[in-house]
Amino acid sequence: MTVILVTGGARSGKSRRAEVRARSFAGQPVYIATAEALDAEMDERIARHRARRGNDWIEREVPLDLVEALTETDGAGARLVDCLTLWLSNLLHAERDWPQEVMRLANALPRQQSPVILVTNEVGLGIVPDNALARTFRDAAGLMNQTIAEVANEVEFVVAGLPMKLK
Amino acid sequence: MTVILVTGGARSGKSRRAEVRARSFAGQPVYIATAEALDAEMDERIARHRARRGNDWIEREVPLDLVEALTETDGAGARLVDCLTLWLSNLLHAERDWPQEVMRLANALPRQQSPVILVTNEVGLGIVPDNALARTFRDAAGLMNQTIAEVANEVEFVVAGLPMKLK
Amino acid sequence: MTVILVTGGARSGKSRRAEVRARSFAGQPVYIATAEALDAEMDERIARHRARRGNDWIEREVPLDLVEALTETDGAGARLVDCLTLWLSNLLHAERDWPQEVMRLANALPRQQSPVILVTNEVGLGIVPDNALARTFRDAAGLMNQTIAEVANEVEFVVAGLPMKLK
Repeated sequence: MTVILVTGGARSGKSRRAEVRARSFAGQPVYIATAEALDAEMDERIARHRARRGNDWIEREVPLDLVEALTETDGAGARLVDCLTLWLSNLLHAERDWPQEVMRLANALPRQQSPVILVTNEVGLGIVPDNALARTFRDAAGLMNQTIAEVANEVEFVVAGLPMKLK
Repeated sequence: MTVILVTGGARSGKSRRAEVRARSFAGQPVYIATAEALDAEMDERIARHRARRGNDWIEREVPLDLVEALTETDGAGARLVDCLTLWLSNLLHAERDWPQEVMRLANALPRQQSPVILVTNEVGLGIVPDNALARTFRDAAGLMNQTIAEVANEVEFVVAGLPMKLK
Repeated sequence: MTVILVTGGARSGKSRRAEVRARSFAGQPVYIATAEALDAEMDERIARHRARRGNDWIEREVPLDLVEALTETDGAGARLVDCLTLWLSNLLHAERDWPQEVMRLANALPRQQSPVILVTNEVGLGIVPDNALARTFRDAAGLMNQTIAEVANEVEFVVAGLPMKLK
């Protein structure tokens, strides 16, 4: 199995780095977007990511059922999941049991045949947020990142477009 | 002397990493908590940390007088201070002279016989906070981290549960 | 050419590190401050930086026209630009075309004869900011850092006063 976690801050070049890693494997790459185009800001971001990637990717929109999507797309090229923090945010909004969903993902990853590259965000390196919801989210994101990093073969931390190898 | 500083973001796995380091030394480890159980959120966090650590630690609650606590517990197992940012916050609330207290700590650390492992937070990697108090705090935390890192033998930066060696 | 980018969080020791790098080159170093002394908080910060650096620097205040300042000061000692995030903020306030200005800088840097050391901030590792302006700024800062890191010979990420080599 090949499971690569690419983490970093906003606009650190994580997605681009993950695309490079995904393309390095044989087969047509699959782009699993956890974003839904719900507003203009998100629309524009999705369009920009797509323009950079090019048209040779299989595309899936998967806001919630990530394990199912990985199972369904297994067997061909690498899967790029962009990104886990948005997926976590979707789980919280949908009032799903996020710790259980994260654990299901952690259990499913080592069983994948085709490579999986997962993009996530570091959100816990600023000042403690005022509102309780933001604190809950950053705690959840930190725990998720630790859990997925533990099952990954490789973990990279991207700063200013440059990856540091964590694992 | 052995002084190890473990830094990182919220829920990055710093405390767990620091516990591993503390247990690697001979003798019964001492847990020096700078947190006070003042609200339910903090209560719950303290209980969770304790459950993970197990019962074989000597425990101390030290919101302010860290140098005195280090002196009193010196001579046996390693001391784990969790965490410096909360200590700093306590100093600010109590209107103590925090730069002087940080300097006292920096001077006391090299004189310790038993190992000291200190956990701290990186809080300066987000957007500049709106309110002046938060800006003051993140500036103070950054200066404290530099000061303690300078006297430490080892400094680790933990991201997604994985330590990077800074020193 | 020598172009060194030093990045990190607030009060991480970036400026001090950049000063050490700038002084390592022959010739009188040039300090290019992008800060303007508009309020007491900034005044105090500028004074503190100056006290630390000492009096042997040529000083320039350059809130906007960075490429011109680099051209004018080329040929002698190293130039230290402190810092790019403030410059970006100045560009946004002045309603300049910031992506074009960042590109102009990226194009000008490899043509410099004397070394250039640039300080910047990582601002994207906290929770997503509530207000749209802050989101725009952190996106712009991230893109700027990637662009300048790409043309730099060396990139360092400073945490707790300790540099990690990214490039």
